[in-house]
Amino acid sequence: MSNTKVLPLLEPAAGEAAPCCPPLTERPFTADEAETAARMFKALGDPVRLRLFSAVASHEGGEACVCDISDVGVSQPTVSHHLKKLKDAGLLSSERRGTWVYYRVEPSVLATMGRLLAIPSSAA
Amino acid sequence: MSNTKVLPLLEPAAGEAAPCCPPLTERPFTADEAETAARMFKALGDPVRLRLFSAVASHEGGEACVCDISDVGVSQPTVSHHLKKLKDAGLLSSERRGTWVYYRVEPSVLATMGRLLAIPSSAA
Repeated sequence: MSNTKVLPLLEPAAGEAAPCCPPLTERPFTADEAETAARMFKALGDPVRLRLFSAVASHEGGEACVCDISDVGVSQPTVSHHLKKLKDAGLLSSERRGTWVYYRVEPSVLATMGRLLAIPSSAA
Repeated sequence: MSNTKVLPLLEPAAGEAAPCCPPLTERPFTADEAETAARMFKALGDPVRLRLFSAVASHEGGEACVCDISDVGVSQPTVSHHLKKLKDAGLLSSERRGTWVYYRVEPSVLATMGRLLAIPSSAA
């Protein structure tokens, strides 16, 4: 539980915006920035994981457990496996309550990834 | 040249916004939506490709050729290979001019991916 790799971007100083990274259009990324950001993109680069992420992100209350997710066409152990991968990549947080682990999207992740893809105002 | 796979999202009706996909937080993605969107995320899920994408996206004039990119720590053939992968995934377009192929980021791609990551106004 405490042994998962958490992205640096999920550990911002209290109340501050996540530090990684500038918009992709701003300047060439450094190797470190690319490592951090690529991990997020890679986690969403699988159709099943993306469906699960979307299922959690759009679920009532902004959180969901395996028990809420049944229609992505894979077994429950596979769902659990992918949810754990999304958590390990820092995209979801989780909390055990009774029988189930509930997953929640980190709003800071959406903000960080959205910032990466920001379009320069000159091109808007 | 004409044999590359182009994502459906890069073929919107004339002048219209790309059709794929709603924000990830809006509702669970369908299998088709997840396939399309995961392909984009996966293409950016590699640190070298992400650095190259950033190098092209931030280059003067919004385009770059292999001759402009020299500092990502991989050989020129590897650079060419990854640029082609980004093109095959629909994230870059290319045009041969003389000796070099010039790559350009499709602004519609940034807009589409940014929309995927839009944060619901209730959470903003």
